[in-house]
Formats: sequence, C-alpha cells, structure tokens
Amino acid sequence: MFNFSDVLSDVAIREAQPFAGFPPFHFVGGNIDEPTVPADALANAVATVLRECGHTMGKYGMDSGPQGYLPLRAFVAGMLKRRAGMNVATGDVLLTTGSLQAMDLVNSTLLNRGDVVVLEDANYSGALTRLDALGVEYIGVPLDDDGMRMDALDAALADLKANGRRAKFIYTIPTVQNPTGSVMPIERRREMLAISGKYNVPIFEDDCYADLMFSGARPPAIHALDDEGRVIYCGTFFKTIAPALRVGYLVTPWPLMGRILPLKTDAGSGALEQLVLAEYLPAHFDNHVTGLLPMLQEKADALCGALDEHFGASVEYTRPVGGIYLWVTLPENVDTDRLYQVALAEGVEINPGSQWTVDGPANRHRMRLCFGHPSVENIRRGIAKLAQVCFDEFGVPERGGNVAR
Amino acid sequence: MFNFSDVLSDVAIREAQPFAGFPPFHFVGGNIDEPTVPADALANAVATVLRECGHTMGKYGMDSGPQGYLPLRAFVAGMLKRRAGMNVATGDVLLTTGSLQAMDLVNSTLLNRGDVVVLEDANYSGALTRLDALGVEYIGVPLDDDGMRMDALDAALADLKANGRRAKFIYTIPTVQNPTGSVMPIERRREMLAISGKYNVPIFEDDCYADLMFSGARPPAIHALDDEGRVIYCGTFFKTIAPALRVGYLVTPWPLMGRILPLKTDAGSGALEQLVLAEYLPAHFDNHVTGLLPMLQEKADALCGALDEHFGASVEYTRPVGGIYLWVTLPENVDTDRLYQVALAEGVEINPGSQWTVDGPANRHRMRLCFGHPSVENIRRGIAKLAQVCFDEFGVPERGGNVAR
Repeated sequence: MFNFSDVLSDVAIREAQPFAGFPPFHFVGGNIDEPTVPADALANAVATVLRECGHTMGKYGMDSGPQGYLPLRAFVAGMLKRRAGMNVATGDVLLTTGSLQAMDLVNSTLLNRGDVVVLEDANYSGALTRLDALGVEYIGVPLDDDGMRMDALDAALADLKANGRRAKFIYTIPTVQNPTGSVMPIERRREMLAISGKYNVPIFEDDCYADLMFSGARPPAIHALDDEGRVIYCGTFFKTIAPALRVGYLVTPWPLMGRILPLKTDAGSGALEQLVLAEYLPAHFDNHVTGLLPMLQEKADALCGALDEHFGASVEYTRPVGGIYLWVTLPENVDTDRLYQVALAEGVEINPGSQWTVDGPANRHRMRLCFGHPSVENIRRGIAKLAQVCFDEFGVPERGGNVAR
Repeated sequence: MFNFSDVLSDVAIREAQPFAGFPPFHFVGGNIDEPTVPADALANAVATVLRECGHTMGKYGMDSGPQGYLPLRAFVAGMLKRRAGMNVATGDVLLTTGSLQAMDLVNSTLLNRGDVVVLEDANYSGALTRLDALGVEYIGVPLDDDGMRMDALDAALADLKANGRRAKFIYTIPTVQNPTGSVMPIERRREMLAISGKYNVPIFEDDCYADLMFSGARPPAIHALDDEGRVIYCGTFFKTIAPALRVGYLVTPWPLMGRILPLKTDAGSGALEQLVLAEYLPAHFDNHVTGLLPMLQEKADALCGALDEHFGASVEYTRPVGGIYLWVTLPENVDTDRLYQVALAEGVEINPGSQWTVDGPANRHRMRLCFGHPSVENIRRGIAKLAQVCFDEFGVPERGGNVAR
C-alpha cells in the first residue's frame, strides 16, 4: 500500500484517532445544552424560507454577493446597534463560516510570518494554535477581573516600540473572556482605544460570548466607542442558537473589507444556514437569548457548587457573570495535562490550562471547564468523579463532601 | 481614520469592489439553473430532520464526530459504490465545507513551499491560485479529448525524477474535466495508476462534475481501480443540488485521514446542510440528477448552436458530454483578458483563458463559458452580444447569423 507518511507536509504533524463518541462527563468545547436548540422554530423558519427563496441557492452567494445573504446582514447590523451600541452598515458586514473563519481571514489579511500580536495571556486555544501555525509571535498581557490589564498592555507595546517593532493588532475578547469569563468595563475599553491610538495599533475585538451575559449589563463594544476605524469586530450565532450552525460575522468597513474578500476563497459560506437564520432571528433572537440565560446561570451555580463541595479550598475561581466556561486554579502540584488523561479514562473530559495560556508551563495547574453542554445532574456527578480522580493521582482535594478521602 | 494599508500581509494584494449584482448574461462560475434547485423537497426534508434530530446541533459535529454527520457519510459511501464503483467505508469519508475545503485540506496535509505538483495544463482557476498562494510549483500536462495525455504525464514525471525531484501528487479531474469537459476512458485511468505506481506518486482525483454526464456512460473512478491506496478522492453535491449548499466530501482511508483531521480547524462543517442532505438525498438523489441532465444537454446544445450561429468558423470547441462548461478557442488575435473587460461593460461575463491554464499567455485566445446558470434564451442573446462586442474590438467574427457585420 502507498505510504503517505513519505509525502506529508511540515504542518501535518499531529495524528487524530477515530472518533469514539463523547465521554459521559463532557466539560470541554463550546457545546451548549441540547434542549436549548430551537429545533422546531428553526424547522418552521427553514421550511418557510426555502419555499419562498430556496431557488436563489442556484447561485453562489445567492443574490447578495460574496459578503453573504443581505437580509441576515441587515439583521446583524440592527442587532449590533441594539445590543452592542455599534453603528454598522450592511456593507460593513461579512457573513462567515463560523467566527473561526472570521479569525482566519483577519489573520491572513494582516499577518506575515515573523509578525507580532498582543493578546490576553489566558486565551482561546484555537487563537494561539492558529498564530503558531502562521509563524506569528504573540505577547501575552495579564488579566485581572476586569479583563486585559491596560498598564501591562501599554508596557508591552512600549517594549515592542523600544525594539523597533509594532504589533499588527491587539486581539481581545473583552466581554466574557475565554477562558477567564472577565468582562471589561467601559472605562477600560476607552483606555484600550487610547492606547491603540498612542501606538497606532488596531484592535481585533472577538465578541463571541457577549450575548451570553447572565448577570450585570453588557457594556458597549469597543467598536462602538471607536471614532477612528481602528477596530475589527467579529461575533457568532453558534453559541446562542446552535454550535453546529456555522454562521459568524466580521465587521469592518471598506477599504479593508475589499482586501479581506479576495482571501475568502470558499465560494461563499453556507446558504441554507444564512437563509434560515435570516428568517428565524428577527422575531426570535432576543427572546431566545433571554431564555437561555437563567439556564446558564443555573449551570454556572451548579458547577461552582459542585467544585465547592468536592474540591473545597483546593480550587480558586471567579464566579462567572456570563458565558459557558469556568477558569479554575488548582494547587501547584496538580498537573492538568496529566489530570486530563486520567480523568478522560474515567469518562470526564476537561481542558488543561497549558493549552489555554501563552505561558503553558506556568499554567499547568489550571483548567477550563465548560458548563454549557452537560446537564446540572452530570455537572454534579462529573465534578465528584473529577475530584476523586484528582485525589487518587495528586492527593488533592484531601477532603470533599465534608469527609476525608 | 486608521490606515489599514500600513498593516496588510503580503497575500492581501488584491482589492475587491462592492458587489454590484450579477450581469444579465452570466457565463461564469459554477452556478446552475435556479429552477432546478429542489427547494420544496429540501424544505420538507429539513423540517422533518430538524424536528427529529435538530437538538443534536447543540454539539459540534453532532454525535458523529469531526468527520461529519454519519448518515450522510453512509449515503456518500453507498452512492460512490453505485455510481463510481468505489468501495468506501463511512470511516474513509470526511464531509467538508464544499469540495474547496477538501482541496485545501489535501494541499495543507501534503504540500510544503517549493514542492511540485503535476496537473492538467488547462485547469480549474481556483486550484492554480491556491498552489500559487502556497508557493507550490505545478507542471501542466497537455490534454486531448480523452483527458490528460499519459505520454506527457510519464515524460513530466521522468523529467522531475531526472532532476532528483518527485511530484507530491498528480491532481486530475478525469470525469468532465474543468474547463475542457473531457472524460478519461477506463483504459487511460488504468494507465495513470500504472504511471502513479512507476514513479510512486499519489493521485488526487477531483470528481466534482462526474454526476453531470448527459451523454455516454460514466467510467469508474480512478479510486475504484486502485488496489494500492494511492488515490485521494473528492466530490461535492453543490453542482447537483445547489451551489450555495456547501457540502463536499473527501475520501481517504486512515492513517492519512488521521493526518488530515487535525488540520480541519473549523470546529466542524455546517450541520444543517448535512442534516437536510442526509434526509433528502437517499430518496431523491438519483432521480434529481437524472432530471437535471436533459436540461444541461439542452443548454449545451443552445450554447453550441449560438456559437455556431454568431461566431461560425471563428470558434473551435469540443461538444460537451457533461458538466456545465464549454472551453472555446478563438482566433489568435482575440485577447480574452481584454474581451472579458469590454464584454462585462456590456453585461456579458466570461472567464478568460489565461486564468484557466498553466501557461496563461499562451491561452489568451481561449475562454471558458458556463452554461449552467443562464436560461436558453439568455444563452442565445448573450452569445449574440458577445460576438458583436468581440467583432467591435477584434474584428472577429467577421460574419455572424449569415450576414457580414
């Protein structure tokens, strides 16, 4: 048989295993609760829209051109005005195949090998691996409970400038940061814009989780506070409607939009998903999201409660005000790369901290837990099991459920 | 305002203009006839499937893992057995976001900058621009009416070998080649496999148009004739069901599949499109395709007839047996790059030959015409207009419709 290992590229370094199903206790990934997917309403919407304008799928991009289905772009513009305070024209909106494609497009439009980007030092794993693959350097800026620290951001950019370098952009998730869950207050957003101006470095604002705040008010987007066209913005529907619906949006005016479009070489994002969302969202989006929040709050409470019960003083975390993730610090002797392996063997999957941070080795005692997908019951059972596995491997937590192990 | 032109990457070289709608006579792209999109049947299918299993969209990849929705993979495997003679397990199938993602994945898994690929010297423009962007060299092999010439393929690989090089793969569209429409007979497919073995070079078989043969029998896929696992195969539903439905498939067994999956960093292709196709296709695919063919035949006949009428002896082409493209040779003095511009100003869009060939300058008197999308009436009117524009600019065709201009 032909041996393809002879002809692999330099980037084909990892090897996947065949899918073996989800583990019973599934605390990873951006999955959400299955019953929250509005399947019946989507079914009605898609039937209606297909009967009315399904034939336009005979053309790539239907009649709306390469930026995506115009009625959905109009919804996005209105929704961003209402929810994030942004003034956006439909011509500034590009519909993408998930927000990951938006990120890929911004990266390929702005980044060369050897460039440098500044970002939160605990971060979305996929953002970091993408920059690694592009040969782009990234400098991590520490966070506090209000998000990226502006003194540290200023220092990082000053340091680059002193070395004759300029960051290509500041990548930030200001609202319900991944993985820390922090929400940047409006004053700090204004400060980031001032620093962005001081060093003449644009901002790439990733607002994927902003619709999922279940406590406190959502601040205006950084994009909404920007008078100088320095902010590129992206968001998504997949956290609010269904992760497997791959529709995101990128917001930037021309002329940058005109540079991004030639690099979107996919012959258009999926039409059916755009059609159905354009039909469903105008009447349902706000209510649907509002309905999601108490359930997310309940799960966040369940996760915090289970951690308190089974890990006690062995964990530190900040109680989340939104989103689907909890960022957990364990005692220094717990190596979550190892914990990941032994827990998975017991049916509990977690995200090890080393993969969600710029300085992986310094964060091996941290982990990210997603509470979006498992039920409250499975959150409780999964955390109890995780505590037992962690104790068996590392001797912590010594006490759980008020009993010594 | 911030000036993004200061921070663009090296690949952000082209600049798109805002979409201004399709021109009236639209002979480009892989678009199909709008009335052929089975919108009502798709509407029924999607309503059914969403009510039954829409909730599984709460998970990336639903319950089927990163290779895509298992029932659709099962359909693909059965369809490829029935229509292309291939023996494929569901575990060998990866559902992709259009066949372009399949191509991108094969490229990134196998190609490094400086590598070389061998392919048909008239080719899909997007394949060539992708290789350009990757810094990969490609060697064009001439075609005849039976597709890629095997003597020339052997010579190209021998030449590389003499220079101490080995092609990473042979890229071929053997069935209804783009843009020439040629169909490679089974004997030549066997010959290609023998040459592939002789030089130990795998084959990447792109079968995107194979379902659209309206004259003659479809030969078995090269993949079906291969005993040594040397053929990677891709196909798509977007030419048969709807271009804007972005679902393609890539077929290759493990272990190569395991190398490809980590490079598919999109968190899964669109679920809704997979669900609806899995519901619709098993009962409808063969009938739907069979129903398309007479219409494509009629349009091909209309295009050939219009060219004969208005261009007469000034054009050469091979009458198509399938697909949606005609590859047309004009007199040497006609520059289709220029013709593209003047015709577009008159509402007629064509694909200039320079973009569909390895040696662009040598093919500036050729053009690709897509007959999939325009109506028979618009084909006739558009070609009449194109002939007039061509005469005004280049003095040919001197006669058209049996009258001197």
